[in-house]
Amino acid sequence: MELHSSPSSFLVFILITLTSATNFITIFSLPIPLVTPLQSSKQRDTKSISKQSNKTLFTTHFFPQELDHFTFQPKSFNLFNQKYLMNSTYWNKGPGHHGPIFVYTGNEGNIEWFAENTGFMFDIAPKFGALLVFIEHRFYGESLPFGNNSYKDAESLGYLTSTQALADYAILIRSLKQNLSAEASPVVVFGGSYGGMLAAWFRLKYPHIAIGALSSSAPILQFDYITPWSSFYDAVSQDFKDESMNCFEVIKGSWDEIITKGSTKKGLWELSKTFKACQPVQSVWSFRDWLWSSYTYTAMVDYPMPANFLMPLPAFPIQEMCRRIDVFPKGSDKIDMVITAANVYYNYTGDQKCFQIEHKSDPHGLGGWNWQSCTEMVMPMTITSESMFPPYNWTYEDDISSCNSTYGIKPRPHWITTEYGGLRIEQVLKRYASNIIFSNGMKDPWSRGGVLKNISSSIIALVTEKGAHHLDLRFATKEDPPWLTQQRNQEIAIIQGWIDQYYQDLKDVSS
Amino acid sequence: MELHSSPSSFLVFILITLTSATNFITIFSLPIPLVTPLQSSKQRDTKSISKQSNKTLFTTHFFPQELDHFTFQPKSFNLFNQKYLMNSTYWNKGPGHHGPIFVYTGNEGNIEWFAENTGFMFDIAPKFGALLVFIEHRFYGESLPFGNNSYKDAESLGYLTSTQALADYAILIRSLKQNLSAEASPVVVFGGSYGGMLAAWFRLKYPHIAIGALSSSAPILQFDYITPWSSFYDAVSQDFKDESMNCFEVIKGSWDEIITKGSTKKGLWELSKTFKACQPVQSVWSFRDWLWSSYTYTAMVDYPMPANFLMPLPAFPIQEMCRRIDVFPKGSDKIDMVITAANVYYNYTGDQKCFQIEHKSDPHGLGGWNWQSCTEMVMPMTITSESMFPPYNWTYEDDISSCNSTYGIKPRPHWITTEYGGLRIEQVLKRYASNIIFSNGMKDPWSRGGVLKNISSSIIALVTEKGAHHLDLRFATKEDPPWLTQQRNQEIAIIQGWIDQYYQDLKDVSS
Repeated sequence: MELHSSPSSFLVFILITLTSATNFITIFSLPIPLVTPLQSSKQRDTKSISKQSNKTLFTTHFFPQELDHFTFQPKSFNLFNQKYLMNSTYWNKGPGHHGPIFVYTGNEGNIEWFAENTGFMFDIAPKFGALLVFIEHRFYGESLPFGNNSYKDAESLGYLTSTQALADYAILIRSLKQNLSAEASPVVVFGGSYGGMLAAWFRLKYPHIAIGALSSSAPILQFDYITPWSSFYDAVSQDFKDESMNCFEVIKGSWDEIITKGSTKKGLWELSKTFKACQPVQSVWSFRDWLWSSYTYTAMVDYPMPANFLMPLPAFPIQEMCRRIDVFPKGSDKIDMVITAANVYYNYTGDQKCFQIEHKSDPHGLGGWNWQSCTEMVMPMTITSESMFPPYNWTYEDDISSCNSTYGIKPRPHWITTEYGGLRIEQVLKRYASNIIFSNGMKDPWSRGGVLKNISSSIIALVTEKGAHHLDLRFATKEDPPWLTQQRNQEIAIIQGWIDQYYQDLKDVSS
Repeated sequence: MELHSSPSSFLVFILITLTSATNFITIFSLPIPLVTPLQSSKQRDTKSISKQSNKTLFTTHFFPQELDHFTFQPKSFNLFNQKYLMNSTYWNKGPGHHGPIFVYTGNEGNIEWFAENTGFMFDIAPKFGALLVFIEHRFYGESLPFGNNSYKDAESLGYLTSTQALADYAILIRSLKQNLSAEASPVVVFGGSYGGMLAAWFRLKYPHIAIGALSSSAPILQFDYITPWSSFYDAVSQDFKDESMNCFEVIKGSWDEIITKGSTKKGLWELSKTFKACQPVQSVWSFRDWLWSSYTYTAMVDYPMPANFLMPLPAFPIQEMCRRIDVFPKGSDKIDMVITAANVYYNYTGDQKCFQIEHKSDPHGLGGWNWQSCTEMVMPMTITSESMFPPYNWTYEDDISSCNSTYGIKPRPHWITTEYGGLRIEQVLKRYASNIIFSNGMKDPWSRGGVLKNISSSIIALVTEKGAHHLDLRFATKEDPPWLTQQRNQEIAIIQGWIDQYYQDLKDVSS
């Protein structure tokens, strides 16, 4: 089984596994791009970068965490070092002051990457007098329980689960509060994408530790039969269709042309040249994957301002992709057109002379998500013939068989909804939980698996029509449109409400 | 390490471990008496017994359950058979009828015993048109993941945790609802003592599976520093003091006399005769343990009617114990007096000719609780010099050392409050959860670790001054005092409210 992903970064938001011999495609859907941000000289997200280069953005710490919180075997007590980052610059803490603690519940990647791309927490810390804490998810970054052997097999990877991660956060936060004599400080959790799922689930499972959660772009309903299986790729397709019907049709028509052309050795060689591959490409499916990723990721980060979340991109990058396609004269070669479009994603800065279509590196040891998607994070996704992608029929049987052959274990496809719920979520949470913001931008295909309607007076859905993947969590910039500023202001006001209520309750108890 | 418990049944509500050489006492506090009900001919709880002898009370089933829900190691997928009982006699299920499912979240013992002592569920099933399900807790009764080797060591016992048990219940309930085409039927969970803790925690952790919980006599606050450590034995002492100050003083004064007398071989031999031991007793501490258990368990089951929960006892058994002490002339031998009192507990029927002071049997394989109290269920308990028991100073250090020497693993004494909360519970749950009844009887010393005040309009504490250990869960009898009937009626009305609300929500969603 071979993993294909994008050339200059390792994108596992969607891992497309191609078995060339059979042309059988298995899609692992992943809620988070596990990517090293490109630090190119043409970087446009200047405010973020200038803050990133600020050495005092956070300090680094490690916490001795137990391997298994839910069993008591001798091995369960083995310790590993869990990394976390802190910024206490603005913390309003002292006699009579119980400034809040804002905790980012880390997702699948090194925690610095998430901290640096969650500028919202830095932006609002002064207003709230908050301590910032970013906790790295076990089995990612430097928080590897078995060092270089962590991804070796199911024996070690077996401890990589969302429930263990949530328990890690609970234990670390309690310990931190005790060590900082901050027992009375309220904790609010933040997270985007898979980190947003963890933030919401943390509030659901550990309401005694976090008073509320900002869960951004968290597809917690992308499981079982809750969300239509085709919704993700329908949404990507709609993003392109909204921009230009011609653009949509060109992309839709290009797949067969690529496969046909690449079916001979000569054609494959020519495609390698046309795509500017750094090395001759061995499988025609790699081209398809390369293009596929560019559309999907661009849909996710279709931000209204220049940004560098996955790649350095202009404002409205889908618009730019389609503009490039639409300027071609009628009857032009579809393959040329889609390559030019994909270059918006892979080479907007113009730095790249050639592309690693195959042989991608994994500089951050992010293979863990592939495991997670083969165990708990089973998000069914199909592709209908109405989309701009080649149709694909996902089945549980294929998924189980594929995961079993890779890891020797079976997925538990209904575990997430058993453990965290999701079915009839409005009915359940309107009578139960409180203090969760689910924010989503409708340009982001993951939004379709998110909570898009208010559930109660304190379980709020903030939906922006033109927003994309956890855009709200990014640093504020001068280019921010008013609706984004308004969304963030709503979030600030709601979080302020939670904290005010907490302090009032604290006062009522003490008096 | 030797476990001491009562003679004709194995009571592990309080396991008192005596190391005779050092006179060092370690107390493991246990929320549930793991006892085989005596089926003596003089059984008084006739209604219960008559129902128990009814062969149609329930049918028996087994569910293939996975060993470890929170890791994905190859071994995690091993299956064991989890036992559950059902009674569908009154289930109002059919087109348009979504009769509720009442689930008992089993505790540490065979499930028949809990089912037979939770007559309340049978009593109310017709009114609610409810399906009854009683699920056995993993590692108890017949639900042993490793058969006879289940208690062998920490490798196997490691999977015996409350979190795994709750996940078992979640998975089994979901499967059952699917198999019975009862997706729309609301689930309410019930439990007493440790089972009551599990019921409350189940509602807290799995609100998407259970719409509410009746948590009876559940000391969920008997952890960490939430409840004063001396409260349990203070409460037992108070029960006796309330009855008779002389009674209290006699018991309090008896301990030293027993130890003094038993310090010689001759004295020990004489005590064996006086206590009517079936075999010569080897350690003087065994007498102390035997008496100790009789007071503690009688306080728990100090019911206002004859009952046979732990032993066949008269109504108000503490009153009877103290009556027997108080009729002795002034200056009588204290040892004779306390033996006569203890005989209320051990031999009210008069059947027993001698007592197994040592060498107790464990017919139900209940050793699992000792493991649980050495891992998660760390309930600190001290005894002050004001109580009627010999003073005892519990420490975390001693507990860790003792458990480590028994099982080779360390307790996690703060895990329960990390995983389930408990600290500042009013403040947390008034802003979060819903639909839990915490019922407690103040005669029961476990009540002190329970939730005794209403937290919100739907998290209700029902406290009876004269009630005892999950009395409300027992079959109704003709001898029930009005306050007990009233308590049960309140419970019925509250549960009815949850179900009505659920049906209304269902209607709102469908319409």
